[in-house]
Amino acid sequence: MGMNPPAVTGAPLSEVDTPALVVDLDAFERNLDLLAATVADAGVKLRPHAKMHKSPWVALRQIERGAVGVCCQKVSEAEVMVAGGVSDVLVSNQVVGAQKLAKLAKLNHEAIVRVCIDHIDAVAEISAAANAEGVVIDTLVEIDVGAGRCGVMPGGAALALAQAIAGAPHLTFGGLQAYHGSAQHLRTPEQRKTAIDGAIEGTAETVKLLADNDLNCAIVGGAGTGTFELEAASGVFNELQCGSYAFMDADYARNKVANGEPFDTFEHALFVRAAVMSRPSEQSAVVDAGHKACAIDSGLPVPWAMAGADMTGMSDEHGVIDITTVNEKPERGDAVLLIPGHCDPTINLHDWYVGVRALHTPDARVEHVWPVAARGALF
Amino acid sequence: MGMNPPAVTGAPLSEVDTPALVVDLDAFERNLDLLAATVADAGVKLRPHAKMHKSPWVALRQIERGAVGVCCQKVSEAEVMVAGGVSDVLVSNQVVGAQKLAKLAKLNHEAIVRVCIDHIDAVAEISAAANAEGVVIDTLVEIDVGAGRCGVMPGGAALALAQAIAGAPHLTFGGLQAYHGSAQHLRTPEQRKTAIDGAIEGTAETVKLLADNDLNCAIVGGAGTGTFELEAASGVFNELQCGSYAFMDADYARNKVANGEPFDTFEHALFVRAAVMSRPSEQSAVVDAGHKACAIDSGLPVPWAMAGADMTGMSDEHGVIDITTVNEKPERGDAVLLIPGHCDPTINLHDWYVGVRALHTPDARVEHVWPVAARGALF
Repeated sequence: MGMNPPAVTGAPLSEVDTPALVVDLDAFERNLDLLAATVADAGVKLRPHAKMHKSPWVALRQIERGAVGVCCQKVSEAEVMVAGGVSDVLVSNQVVGAQKLAKLAKLNHEAIVRVCIDHIDAVAEISAAANAEGVVIDTLVEIDVGAGRCGVMPGGAALALAQAIAGAPHLTFGGLQAYHGSAQHLRTPEQRKTAIDGAIEGTAETVKLLADNDLNCAIVGGAGTGTFELEAASGVFNELQCGSYAFMDADYARNKVANGEPFDTFEHALFVRAAVMSRPSEQSAVVDAGHKACAIDSGLPVPWAMAGADMTGMSDEHGVIDITTVNEKPERGDAVLLIPGHCDPTINLHDWYVGVRALHTPDARVEHVWPVAARGALF
Repeated sequence: MGMNPPAVTGAPLSEVDTPALVVDLDAFERNLDLLAATVADAGVKLRPHAKMHKSPWVALRQIERGAVGVCCQKVSEAEVMVAGGVSDVLVSNQVVGAQKLAKLAKLNHEAIVRVCIDHIDAVAEISAAANAEGVVIDTLVEIDVGAGRCGVMPGGAALALAQAIAGAPHLTFGGLQAYHGSAQHLRTPEQRKTAIDGAIEGTAETVKLLADNDLNCAIVGGAGTGTFELEAASGVFNELQCGSYAFMDADYARNKVANGEPFDTFEHALFVRAAVMSRPSEQSAVVDAGHKACAIDSGLPVPWAMAGADMTGMSDEHGVIDITTVNEKPERGDAVLLIPGHCDPTINLHDWYVGVRALHTPDARVEHVWPVAARGALF
């Protein structure tokens, strides 16, 4: 299974089949370099989230710039990362079920593959899986610092789990997972600071409580592309888990920074290249990318470098762009670049990345084609 | 690429890994039988849309019940269908670009693979591709009967294209493509009838205009799961293109029929089986299926057979169910079935179907595991 690549290395951009996931390699490398330098300056570590890119190819480029490893959300993602050469993975999520835990344990023969818990039963479950494979599994406690998803409350509940981990055979206590997902997309810097101040407070209090009980947090992990500067400066978090920074997307671009300016710390490096397959009227262009090429959980994609254009609707295989006020209207057969609303689930729709050098120039050329290797890694 | 199957044939339901796409084979077969009987009674043909299921395995089961072939939206989908044994495919969409047209033409050596046009330039383009391969391509004119997407207006514009096709070397004129997509999901039968009455009127007028000009429409195709009874009874449409009827989804279940009753002509036969990975409170259960397992373009999934449960949010790998008023609350580790909001793009997220016999009984057992073979067929 899996489709053939939409392009070959060395081809000009015009020969990339549509719709395809196109990476601006220059912007991508600048994004990686920038965050690597920022975390180094802050004296913290970077463990980027591979749930975003689903690609060991990308992970290795993050690691060669200093990342300590990656995060995953699924054991099957971790399997792909380890097979692709990543030696330190944190599954920053709950893993429930003997089948999944057996795979997690087995993977620890090949790499360090850590996991999180938020329930006392998980201690015995993971310990048993580790025992069956003869490995030791580093286990973190997930605390809910505002995301309202998994995790126990900061404080005593976390201490109880940490003590249980520390006392269990075949497990080591690895620290805290404290990610505030919904804070990433709060639009103003004040809103984000308020949310992350709360996350830092709960995390700091828990780290102290654990230390008072002789439990050291080797990892205090969290943060995303929208808030990482706050966690980096907290003095509490020591590993940042940003994912989207490598590629950016339309939703992160709607965040505001000081003075109401748009968040543009990172550049748009990811696009869906689509082609106009119909021009039913002067007002509209229909492109060959719909729900199966662009996830819309964070809104419709945004046409790139087409002033006045507005994507007004999508169906499974069609996207409709209102071009009423566009001066140079795209014609039937023309290609357009779309900025995904949300990078993670959009990438997960594609089998291949097409990495293009000098994307926005006449010399645009395919330099790398690599698989979205963990696409569909749901388990 | 592609993940390992989440289950093996013969396994009990409890051993199906999560999240997985599960088909209730009994309900699925009843759905196929019902529509096959209905179209036979109406004296029309069925050409189900394979964009929905992406699976030759499903297509062949539709064809053995009388379907004349399938529709696809993409040439790469058609390639998968032909490779899987389907001998008659209509690409019910515009195909623009020499690369795609070359593949379409080549495929006509192995099967009948028809295509649609809505622009005069397409005539020469498709003719050239057919000539290069030494094949004849049956070509339909797409008319816009209300969907507001691709297609020319009914009447003279369609006649001009049909005449151009009929006069072009290496092409045959195949008829009209007249699908009213947005009408499928209008909630009341009156709204749907008004919309489809308009579609029928424009289609009938065009068929007559073509006949007056000695152009016969072998295929007058359209209709979907929400409106097929109207097109079937129209005396104009002769091929129905329903897709979702085989599996149903939560959005179609929101349609109403006479007396305000819910649309339940077809049974829910498709589910995402997910597991509870956290129970952070009495009010909420977090399952291991998020945006990467369930498309939400037509709303969040709906928990099956869990009265009072309401899915309130999803992130990429998490789904949150409000279970405040649920009597038998699912516990950590329990499996739940989710009815997808929209079947087509949800299926496209998965690599495998898990076909289960007697799904909602204690004897539930995996009878077939088959690939979503055209998943990711975007080109």
